[in-house]
Amino acid sequence: MAGPEIERLIQLLARLPGLGPRSARRAALHLLKKKDALLLPLAATLREVGDSVHACSTCGNLDSRDPCAICTDSRRDESLLCVVESVADLWALERAGVFRGRYHVLGGTLSALDGVGPTDLNVDGLVARVNGGRVKEVIIATNATVEGQTTAHYITDRVAPSGVQITRLAHGVPVGGELDYLDDGTLGAALKARRPL
Amino acid sequence: MAGPEIERLIQLLARLPGLGPRSARRAALHLLKKKDALLLPLAATLREVGDSVHACSTCGNLDSRDPCAICTDSRRDESLLCVVESVADLWALERAGVFRGRYHVLGGTLSALDGVGPTDLNVDGLVARVNGGRVKEVIIATNATVEGQTTAHYITDRVAPSGVQITRLAHGVPVGGELDYLDDGTLGAALKARRPL
Repeated sequence: MAGPEIERLIQLLARLPGLGPRSARRAALHLLKKKDALLLPLAATLREVGDSVHACSTCGNLDSRDPCAICTDSRRDESLLCVVESVADLWALERAGVFRGRYHVLGGTLSALDGVGPTDLNVDGLVARVNGGRVKEVIIATNATVEGQTTAHYITDRVAPSGVQITRLAHGVPVGGELDYLDDGTLGAALKARRPL
Repeated sequence: MAGPEIERLIQLLARLPGLGPRSARRAALHLLKKKDALLLPLAATLREVGDSVHACSTCGNLDSRDPCAICTDSRRDESLLCVVESVADLWALERAGVFRGRYHVLGGTLSALDGVGPTDLNVDGLVARVNGGRVKEVIIATNATVEGQTTAHYITDRVAPSGVQITRLAHGVPVGGELDYLDDGTLGAALKARRPL
């Protein structure tokens, strides 16, 4: 079999989401074949990212600066605060390029099954930011799952005393979606939230 | 969007086989979440592998030693030489644990379409090893593809003058395979190579 260093590389690669033991072996061979073009740059970039990237102490986003590039961007509207579960959700909204306010990353959702309670999420930080006085609207953008909705209700309860406006993303038919393939819950929500044309 | 270091990490990860742009993003976030348990060890292992692992000058296997662990293992039969296309094939045979001789990695197959000629493969090295006098049997284990079979014929022509025995892997029904799902070529080969019970 391969030497101990290569075996260790395969084991580490196999722990990445989307790679199993077999594809990790293929990836390791690919890396060894492209040593100068891929393996060494990847090693250097991993170290650089590991050394420099940290969670932003204000919003929880991952960046090499603290506060992060979004929190310090003066062109963004600091009166709009979008609450997301994870950095992946923040990236999804940024990719869409539809939001020009600031973010707040909770770091998960309330989940009794997984033992995640309010103290495990960055909710106190959110309440402190809202009470800071500059935020006028909190947009809750947790996932439309049971855990996400539970968390949304909890956050609403916590933020409501500050008196700022609280909104959530609309539920409805996805753009490009066909009614025939949609679940009853989404169809019901879309009908309930119908808008005048 | 994410910072430039993270973007660069995502781009490098997306070049691994089995990972696309979306799964590379997921992998990057996973690495950042498990910085001490996964990201930093992976960076260190990549650098270690990049620095220490090279192709064996005898057989072409990848190892931190040269000659490699297989070439220097005195318990392995040096009179048996198994010719494979790639290190991945060598690993597959080693995983199966069915071969106790030495290997010779060609580094590809003859392919007019991809512009791979005899000089691009490690065939001269193979002929030199066979002429060295210790090899009694050359087992050709190229893939059962058109390119693999073309390469097998070419190697046979080159090795034949030395007078050593030349064999190839058997074609036939895969163990656990059902006849109903097999292609005509395999069924024909299995019938032609039938053995007395």
